[in-house]
Amino acid sequence: MASSPSEQALAAAARVDEQRLWQRHMDMAQHGARDDGGVNRQAFSAEDAAARALLASWAESLGYGLFIDPITNLYVRRPGTQADAAPVLAGSHLDSQPMGGKFDGAFGVLAAFEALQAISEAGIETRRPIEAVAWVNEEGSRFQPGMTGSFVFTGAMLQAEAEAARDAEGIAVADTLAAMRAATPTAVARPLGIEVAAYVEAHIEQGPRLEAAGLPVGVVTGIQGARWFAIEVTGHADHAGTTPRAQRRDALLAATRMVTALEALTADPDDVVRFTVGRFDVVPGSPNTVPERVFFTIDLRHPDATVLNRFGDAIAHTCHAEAGPCGVTVDETQYSAPVAFPDRMRDAIRGAAEALGLGHMDLPSGAGHDAKALAGVCPTGMIFVPCEKGISHNPAENATPADLAAGARVLTATLVDLANA
Amino acid sequence: MASSPSEQALAAAARVDEQRLWQRHMDMAQHGARDDGGVNRQAFSAEDAAARALLASWAESLGYGLFIDPITNLYVRRPGTQADAAPVLAGSHLDSQPMGGKFDGAFGVLAAFEALQAISEAGIETRRPIEAVAWVNEEGSRFQPGMTGSFVFTGAMLQAEAEAARDAEGIAVADTLAAMRAATPTAVARPLGIEVAAYVEAHIEQGPRLEAAGLPVGVVTGIQGARWFAIEVTGHADHAGTTPRAQRRDALLAATRMVTALEALTADPDDVVRFTVGRFDVVPGSPNTVPERVFFTIDLRHPDATVLNRFGDAIAHTCHAEAGPCGVTVDETQYSAPVAFPDRMRDAIRGAAEALGLGHMDLPSGAGHDAKALAGVCPTGMIFVPCEKGISHNPAENATPADLAAGARVLTATLVDLANA
Repeated sequence: MASSPSEQALAAAARVDEQRLWQRHMDMAQHGARDDGGVNRQAFSAEDAAARALLASWAESLGYGLFIDPITNLYVRRPGTQADAAPVLAGSHLDSQPMGGKFDGAFGVLAAFEALQAISEAGIETRRPIEAVAWVNEEGSRFQPGMTGSFVFTGAMLQAEAEAARDAEGIAVADTLAAMRAATPTAVARPLGIEVAAYVEAHIEQGPRLEAAGLPVGVVTGIQGARWFAIEVTGHADHAGTTPRAQRRDALLAATRMVTALEALTADPDDVVRFTVGRFDVVPGSPNTVPERVFFTIDLRHPDATVLNRFGDAIAHTCHAEAGPCGVTVDETQYSAPVAFPDRMRDAIRGAAEALGLGHMDLPSGAGHDAKALAGVCPTGMIFVPCEKGISHNPAENATPADLAAGARVLTATLVDLANA
Repeated sequence: MASSPSEQALAAAARVDEQRLWQRHMDMAQHGARDDGGVNRQAFSAEDAAARALLASWAESLGYGLFIDPITNLYVRRPGTQADAAPVLAGSHLDSQPMGGKFDGAFGVLAAFEALQAISEAGIETRRPIEAVAWVNEEGSRFQPGMTGSFVFTGAMLQAEAEAARDAEGIAVADTLAAMRAATPTAVARPLGIEVAAYVEAHIEQGPRLEAAGLPVGVVTGIQGARWFAIEVTGHADHAGTTPRAQRRDALLAATRMVTALEALTADPDDVVRFTVGRFDVVPGSPNTVPERVFFTIDLRHPDATVLNRFGDAIAHTCHAEAGPCGVTVDETQYSAPVAFPDRMRDAIRGAAEALGLGHMDLPSGAGHDAKALAGVCPTGMIFVPCEKGISHNPAENATPADLAAGARVLTATLVDLANA
């Protein structure tokens, strides 16, 4: 299904300025710029504060309202005709990975800001306010866990818990908030958890599918669920030359049998299951000693909770079945349920893409986003644009000005109609 | 086959003193004693020098001759009736691993010394001289490679090459030789590579088979060959949540397929093949990143060169066949041909064990020993005794006084008949 956007929505989308949007990405990327062309703009850092100050300066130059909440999420507000109506929010985050790129997060914030400006330039009034929001610490690279801003905003995390997180140098989030507020001194304080009419987040895909399909717009169906496991296999260290196989308890051979069996277990002709063993540590790691211990991780993802749970629940049994003479413990270290975005949000995004003549496809999000938190409190949708070779969390992260503008146009049209609904 | 030992040989064996032999192990273990009961007596160290001085003091107290060669191998000589006859040698090494035990190496030297004393106490003359030898730096833990003394003695390594080896602190073997000579000032210099009539080395098994079989004596059939390989699998790092399996080049899954296939390749119902993947490093080793590179090692051993070569030659093909979308390089980093000890040496050892009423079995040596070098220049044999749980290269290394004495008795009887042959 696709909902046809209004004429106003298309008029606003037409005012999206590809060059201006691109230039804002380049300007924003100066804050935390790396020599290799990437961006290191970790949450609650001086670079992060400077990026927020830049956004605030643009907002002030256009006369938009600026708000900040207790965890320092930053909101740029274009008012609606009905002053007390719940706003429609759009945004993402300005913090980056330490070896990050120019587009992950920044695109969602800058596309939302571009939407505000395009709507203004089109002379359109909306009933509801529309706000561009920068959620704090989505990445979680400096302070774990990530998604601090959207979690605290939606009540999934307590403010006190978020403030207590410390970085590797022992600095707490609480210690940084005054500097963050000082970077945007004109921002008006407001509470967490205000009512939100709808939320739309634009983001680079961080995967290769749109590029491979040659399509500029992804209508995100939801965010797949993830289950993380830590597996420890315990055998016995023995002399590689003297110990017969029958007497060995080789933790590496047991662990490789487990990985092989798990790969077979999660085989999926539709290629939707994501199964990754990313860490695999062998002790003692000496060429002529039978390994006594292997520690490995499993990252399992699927958009469908039933499938995710079926595979995830089979992991412990599979590991035990392949342990042979070794011991094995299987701990689930993280569970994140899949989120499905509502049909009407997907229809609105799809309809905007079609009306704008932009090729599109439905696809789930493989990575987590702030939209996951917002989906718990309001109708939520996401728009993906292609990124080069699917690369992200990397200085080589790249996207084309045309694709970014396409995503911003779809976002703009969607926001106009959501704000008038 | 078993050769019956002479009456003289059995008479000499009867003089082996279990308590004396055990006490010498305990005394020797004072040099480099670790708090945990183990021994840290690395080659060319002050502890190594002190251990050699202790052996020399025992030799002098019994009136045996003492000789030293240019690489500082130390020889205790009991003369024969034919002064110019090539000696029969028996021994092993006095250096240990940094986390070593009391028996690995020391037993072979002390059993040989016990044999000299037992033969003397039995009032037996032998035609050939018999010498107890301590080869330098068998372990190679401080200076690589090991087996320095036996390699240099047999011409497998040049003296200059051995002297040039440096430890982690930059000290060369050449820098240590004066101190080694000073520890045994009465030892008479003699050249490398003298003619040797035969060589017999007693050693703890360093494996579990004798203990499991409840037998005190192992008639060593030879030293198995070893081939070492380094395998590097190259894939591509990708986001674990977003990258479809079809587009992944997962180095870990490729490497585990290789290990599984290699394990199947080397399956052996007789449990003689030794196949070990001891090191397995994954890059970047992050739970939510598809591994881009795996480096792993293979330690393959077998007593039969034909089998060793057949399996070893199949490794590269197997790895390439399982590489899937990844690249793979297979480098052979070490080749060590199997050594088979001559039947007549094995028959002599087996015959001595039988005549002494000691249970025995044939078995190959899984580890390398100085006997491997000597086998290239003279008839060579080895006698194993059980060690607790097969553990060696560990402070917990242990053996019983009775088993050590049993091995020394077989050695004594064997040496008498070799020296009269």
